[in-house]
Amino acid sequence: MTDNSTICAMATPPGKGPISLIRLSGKEAISICSKVFHPVHKKKKLADQKTYTIHYGILKDKNKIIDQVLVSIFKAPHSYTGEDLIEVSCHGAEYIQQQILQLFIKNGARLAKPGEFTLRAFLNGKMDLSQAEAVADLIASSSEASHKVAMQQMRGGFSNEIKKLREQLINFKSLIELELDFSEEDLEFADRDELKKLVIKIQQLIDRLVRSFDLGNVIKNGVPVAIVGDINVGKSTLLNTLLNEEKAIVSEIPGTTRDVIEDVISIKGFAYRFIDTAGLRDTTDKIEALGIEKTHQKIHQASIVLLLVDVRDPVEDINQSIKSLKKQISGNKKHLIVVMNKIDLEKKINLKIKQDRKCYPSLSTEDSLIKISAKKAENISSLTNELLRAIKLTSIGEHDIIITNVRHYEALVKSGEAIKRVLDGLENNISGDFLSMDIREVLHYLGEITGEITTDEILGNIFSKFCIGK
Amino acid sequence: MTDNSTICAMATPPGKGPISLIRLSGKEAISICSKVFHPVHKKKKLADQKTYTIHYGILKDKNKIIDQVLVSIFKAPHSYTGEDLIEVSCHGAEYIQQQILQLFIKNGARLAKPGEFTLRAFLNGKMDLSQAEAVADLIASSSEASHKVAMQQMRGGFSNEIKKLREQLINFKSLIELELDFSEEDLEFADRDELKKLVIKIQQLIDRLVRSFDLGNVIKNGVPVAIVGDINVGKSTLLNTLLNEEKAIVSEIPGTTRDVIEDVISIKGFAYRFIDTAGLRDTTDKIEALGIEKTHQKIHQASIVLLLVDVRDPVEDINQSIKSLKKQISGNKKHLIVVMNKIDLEKKINLKIKQDRKCYPSLSTEDSLIKISAKKAENISSLTNELLRAIKLTSIGEHDIIITNVRHYEALVKSGEAIKRVLDGLENNISGDFLSMDIREVLHYLGEITGEITTDEILGNIFSKFCIGK
Repeated sequence: MTDNSTICAMATPPGKGPISLIRLSGKEAISICSKVFHPVHKKKKLADQKTYTIHYGILKDKNKIIDQVLVSIFKAPHSYTGEDLIEVSCHGAEYIQQQILQLFIKNGARLAKPGEFTLRAFLNGKMDLSQAEAVADLIASSSEASHKVAMQQMRGGFSNEIKKLREQLINFKSLIELELDFSEEDLEFADRDELKKLVIKIQQLIDRLVRSFDLGNVIKNGVPVAIVGDINVGKSTLLNTLLNEEKAIVSEIPGTTRDVIEDVISIKGFAYRFIDTAGLRDTTDKIEALGIEKTHQKIHQASIVLLLVDVRDPVEDINQSIKSLKKQISGNKKHLIVVMNKIDLEKKINLKIKQDRKCYPSLSTEDSLIKISAKKAENISSLTNELLRAIKLTSIGEHDIIITNVRHYEALVKSGEAIKRVLDGLENNISGDFLSMDIREVLHYLGEITGEITTDEILGNIFSKFCIGK
Repeated sequence: MTDNSTICAMATPPGKGPISLIRLSGKEAISICSKVFHPVHKKKKLADQKTYTIHYGILKDKNKIIDQVLVSIFKAPHSYTGEDLIEVSCHGAEYIQQQILQLFIKNGARLAKPGEFTLRAFLNGKMDLSQAEAVADLIASSSEASHKVAMQQMRGGFSNEIKKLREQLINFKSLIELELDFSEEDLEFADRDELKKLVIKIQQLIDRLVRSFDLGNVIKNGVPVAIVGDINVGKSTLLNTLLNEEKAIVSEIPGTTRDVIEDVISIKGFAYRFIDTAGLRDTTDKIEALGIEKTHQKIHQASIVLLLVDVRDPVEDINQSIKSLKKQISGNKKHLIVVMNKIDLEKKINLKIKQDRKCYPSLSTEDSLIKISAKKAENISSLTNELLRAIKLTSIGEHDIIITNVRHYEALVKSGEAIKRVLDGLENNISGDFLSMDIREVLHYLGEITGEITTDEILGNIFSKFCIGK
């Protein structure tokens, strides 16, 4: 996965900017930098400087001045990677970035692989595996909620708790295995009642974490909302209004297919991914049918389906749309919000009657019916409340433990199965060797989460998804 | 232009990345950071820490943890701006960047204007104006040559020399003005021979710098090369081959018009901007005529015109193209390089005769005729040599002084005019008050280059072109 070489990489985003950072980590980091760095105040050699200090000088390739830079020194083990680490802060020209990296490589470093700095931090015990994963999540976080969850995880959130309980379980396992050595004497070193208490505690934690994944997944990936509505019902006006009301961060991210663009809007700190769709009408036109097929797919991927209609549309048409949509989402856990837009026009044409649920018999009690004016920003808060209620999002407390990672989820589900077997075994007084086997499985899966048990394959999967330089 | 407030801005390129840097500069920089920064090792207050040290801790907005960060302290006057300066190194999520900037603003900082950090560095005497301008050039530099020239200028290159000579001229001016006070006594404090020597020295420097601007401009902005040739002559093959041969940095930059894309290829450290054009044939077709009109414009903007033909084309056709091109560029200082491509095919069809200059009577002795195979990368070095020769580019020495800035060029031309009047005046023994007036003008224009004389308008023009955060 890594080796003993000294690695270097850009640590700031690529491209032109005021300043760029380049990092160099490994046994030779300080000596490689010393070869090419000429401090302005030549009091001491770089290696003799104190850790956590900054030095101003010039980087030179033989006689060629590459840049005036600041060099920060972090000595092992008190650095991000746990190794000697150098950060060079240079002028943010791409030419200079390339020159400095080439200079370090020429002097004995090699370019870092994706995530290799963090991998080394993990291997050197600076953080556990779930904390390392949280680093990537933190960098990718784009909403208050995803930031908070990643931050908790990076600061040891649930992994500390898992480690503590796993430690206790290891002790019991040792005691049980000791019993096996004395099996002829029928001794019981491991107090079965105490063990049962611990096992139940672990089971509760696992259950809690597994249950949190639904929310965690939504927080990490955003809540997919499919907007269904015809061209003139005001879809883009609605998105703009939501954006302004929430003073939210918005970004357009390309969807899974080239032609799907999602608007991500942060509502009360949660990211909602609004996916525009075409209408739903039945059609015989081939091309339109293709569009409608895509609509179906997008609805299928969404957690919330937002049907946007013009309040002036005939009741029968609206009802028809609801009916056809209900048919499509029946059997799936999807929240339907029917939004009647353009109520600013209602005074003119007196359409109050349409906001009565009774007009739309296919609406079930869980479905919502809201009237708004996207243009005049009327009643938008009802809609945002409904969007939050739909996925039971409330604000996340400082100490709430939420998992967001599929790998953790799968390991927790597996350890949940094993812990259940341990509990069943305890209740049925099964023999120590069987008990020990199930406990070992629990320890294995819990250890995979924190990285106490790991394989090159797991590490490869995790760190290859990191960016280079982290 | 600026004020006493503490300013903050992103110092690294926008967007997601491993690390981002945020800078905070001004009297309150340390105290603002102290309010929200919680060091892990609480030995001392941030304000009591030594300059050029780094501190690990947590940034908090009340109880909300924003990030685990490294804080670097630079105390006035030994910082980039000459003020107290804080650099916060955080996880590179856009959400975190925004939160930290908001946090600093909430606690008394304001967002920096473009170039405001460097403006403060200039106002606090950390660098002169031409050095400040070089900072922006350095960041924008994309070739070895532009990097070298910007670096020389940033390190004081010609401005130190100007300042030294200007200082001496100021002394003479004082002496001459002293003479005026004693005008009835007909004293001569300022030795006219010495003054003349100095004035000639200044004139020589100004001349040298003015002359260097042609090259400087080419280095800074790249050499525009218009490629004229029909669709199948191998234009993109040629560009790819040049790129590979030079192992050069390439980038596509949008041209002045939306439909012009330039390929920038660095050849021996100089940036060449290759501008593709349509062919030149006379036409009656309206749309094609429009294309040809554009070709004319691009040729007009280029320093070098590269006519690419297929060696298998009939001699008459090639000659016709050369003739028509020569007619177009006649009267302009443009270098014509006729490149016969596809010589790898010549053996098959024995077309050696075509490489004889005599076949193309409209070629003048300054024009070049080169045969290559772009596909097989044959004879490409002849072409690159010709490209270098065309604009008399040789390698730049470590101590060559080259100006690249139009503002400097204009000020130098004006000071050159004034210094000539001083010299004429000295030779014609004009009176001290007229001499003093001309000297004052020289001092004014030279002072504008280094920033010893400046106006808000000049500063506004310069720094508004900087990026925010520099």
